[in-house]
Amino acid sequence: MSSSRRLFIFQSLLAAASVPSSFKGTAQGIPSEPAFPIGIAGYTFYRIDVQSTIRMMQRLGVQHLSLKDMHLPLNSSDEVIKSTMAQFSAAGIQVYAVGVIYMKSKEAVDQAFRYAEQAGVAMIVGVPDYALLDYCEQKVKQTNIRLAIHNHGPKDPLYPGPGDAYNRIKNRDQRMGLCIDIGHAIRAGVLPQKAVIDYQDRLMDLHIKDVTLATNEGVAIEMGRGVINFPALVRALKKINYRGICSIEYEKDMQDPLPGIAESLGYFRAMLTDK
Amino acid sequence: MSSSRRLFIFQSLLAAASVPSSFKGTAQGIPSEPAFPIGIAGYTFYRIDVQSTIRMMQRLGVQHLSLKDMHLPLNSSDEVIKSTMAQFSAAGIQVYAVGVIYMKSKEAVDQAFRYAEQAGVAMIVGVPDYALLDYCEQKVKQTNIRLAIHNHGPKDPLYPGPGDAYNRIKNRDQRMGLCIDIGHAIRAGVLPQKAVIDYQDRLMDLHIKDVTLATNEGVAIEMGRGVINFPALVRALKKINYRGICSIEYEKDMQDPLPGIAESLGYFRAMLTDK
Repeated sequence: MSSSRRLFIFQSLLAAASVPSSFKGTAQGIPSEPAFPIGIAGYTFYRIDVQSTIRMMQRLGVQHLSLKDMHLPLNSSDEVIKSTMAQFSAAGIQVYAVGVIYMKSKEAVDQAFRYAEQAGVAMIVGVPDYALLDYCEQKVKQTNIRLAIHNHGPKDPLYPGPGDAYNRIKNRDQRMGLCIDIGHAIRAGVLPQKAVIDYQDRLMDLHIKDVTLATNEGVAIEMGRGVINFPALVRALKKINYRGICSIEYEKDMQDPLPGIAESLGYFRAMLTDK
Repeated sequence: MSSSRRLFIFQSLLAAASVPSSFKGTAQGIPSEPAFPIGIAGYTFYRIDVQSTIRMMQRLGVQHLSLKDMHLPLNSSDEVIKSTMAQFSAAGIQVYAVGVIYMKSKEAVDQAFRYAEQAGVAMIVGVPDYALLDYCEQKVKQTNIRLAIHNHGPKDPLYPGPGDAYNRIKNRDQRMGLCIDIGHAIRAGVLPQKAVIDYQDRLMDLHIKDVTLATNEGVAIEMGRGVINFPALVRALKKINYRGICSIEYEKDMQDPLPGIAESLGYFRAMLTDK
């Protein structure tokens, strides 16, 4: 077994162990939730400061956060990184990834990996220029930090759909993979439930959301109100025994996101529950 | 076919026709929702004024409201009743019931039926004293307004569980029935999924919610976080071809209920979706 595979299994066990027990039950035969927990992608809180983000996540009962740089700038000092991470940790919130981080130069790659290392986080969700993929692979091997490439829809010049990332990393180190953004995927004409199956060997993270249309014109909406087929997505995730985190990314009502996040959370939590 | 049965079927067709089409879709094989819509029980908005209630319901995309008297006092003039109803109607919100209304005297029964008539609403959710059930039945026959009796848990001296209401109305006019409050039912030791089956011939309305414990000590919590077995409840509702409304009653965070209502709504909407 490769060291990266062992790392993946170890991290999977950690993730499985951290499923919040408050949401599981067996009284009255209530089905328990599957092994993969729900998180939140930090961009959701773009207009919300760190303290309010923490309070919202506590109210939602969500413990997993993919940290975005408006809450911790990429050029922060070691002290600022440590103190911000300590704030989340003290509140019971596990920062499991950083990103999305755009990388357009070697210096940006260096900065991203140094940031993740200082934060003590094992995964970067990133968008490296094609020409930097060799260098990213070196950094992954050197740091043992995973890099999950994020797709951003029809207007993304690099990775419109998850396949555009997959084809460029599929023969690289196994710690290079995908964070599939299901909303941008469907806007690029890729069914999320198919992408999860097709790219399962490199699927590391998910940004889950809903969109109004399966075209470039689709915009963010509460999960369950749009065009994503969540029953099919959840079937696919169960089929591949997905062991990562499903992070809600809610990009509507950015000034007042809590109700929409909550609706999406309730929707997805029920979708994960066996009937 | 009795006239009450014909009325029930007519109302069922009306309810089925009013399912919001914005939440149904067939693109990508998205399953459509079942025939019974989601509403909100007015007590949820106990601390929220009429205008804010309307705005919250619009944001949630919920169109069915069971009106509670803090938004329209029982002794309101005809003019006030009409203008309040017009506010909801203009906002696209259908007040499908009034209540919960407690009735401890003939005068209170008269007031409740007059209030419902003036509001143009076809159902009262009520709690009449046992001694007033004969008089209530007269009023039901006289006005053709249905009376759904509400159960309120272990400390309720009249109707702790839905069976305590059912046994007192099961041989009366068929327009007398139950509004089963599933949270108070389970606190009284009655499984909601069993009550729905057992009392199906008189089931007119539902207050859906979750509670922390299946005992008197259980308190309100976001749907999906507590002890109610929603998959089993939804199976029972589908089995009996329930054609009423499922109204969310959220009794936590009364000063700021929107996130908890939204989480509950998302949860239940996903539960209703075929997988």
